[in-house]
Amino acid sequence: MSTRYGLHGKLTATEGNRDKLATILLEASKLVSTAKGCQLYMVSIDEADEDAVWVTEAWDSKQDHDNSLQVAGVRELIAQAMPLLAGMPQKGQELQILGGAGIN
Amino acid sequence: MSTRYGLHGKLTATEGNRDKLATILLEASKLVSTAKGCQLYMVSIDEADEDAVWVTEAWDSKQDHDNSLQVAGVRELIAQAMPLLAGMPQKGQELQILGGAGIN
Repeated sequence: MSTRYGLHGKLTATEGNRDKLATILLEASKLVSTAKGCQLYMVSIDEADEDAVWVTEAWDSKQDHDNSLQVAGVRELIAQAMPLLAGMPQKGQELQILGGAGIN
Repeated sequence: MSTRYGLHGKLTATEGNRDKLATILLEASKLVSTAKGCQLYMVSIDEADEDAVWVTEAWDSKQDHDNSLQVAGVRELIAQAMPLLAGMPQKGQELQILGGAGIN
């Protein structure tokens, strides 16, 4: 069965900066939405962790995900986000997506 | 900002039954795809955990999610899945979805 590439990762903001970080990630979602192979780039918060923003992505392939870092404007948004982060982003959970509703 | 309801949860199969469990969950995704408020019901596996299947859901509201258990056929699929599980399913991570690509 062919799988698509998924990533479920957490970014932790410094105190008071979660909403600013989320806004930047929502901007990023607009940029990557047109990238080849992007099926999902979902930005969420979790009541249990008040400084964190979660990003859940689905791509046709890991290669498509990796290429998205080259989309015009994405590096600039990353540069805006970095000073808001409490430490380096940790590697997210990598998923092999089998399918489902809302996924092609 | 209005949020949508997200859930990222893990089901652990007894040894050798992960693929059978995933097949049942993919069947479930077909049923719930037509349910009111269902935006995403994504079924994945994780190389780091060979007995687990992950389900990532996005709904217009928690109520819509809860109602999906009433969709015709869903309870029957749950009944098929239960004997394949290693213990009761744990509560998944609840997310407040802010938006993003692939989400309305």
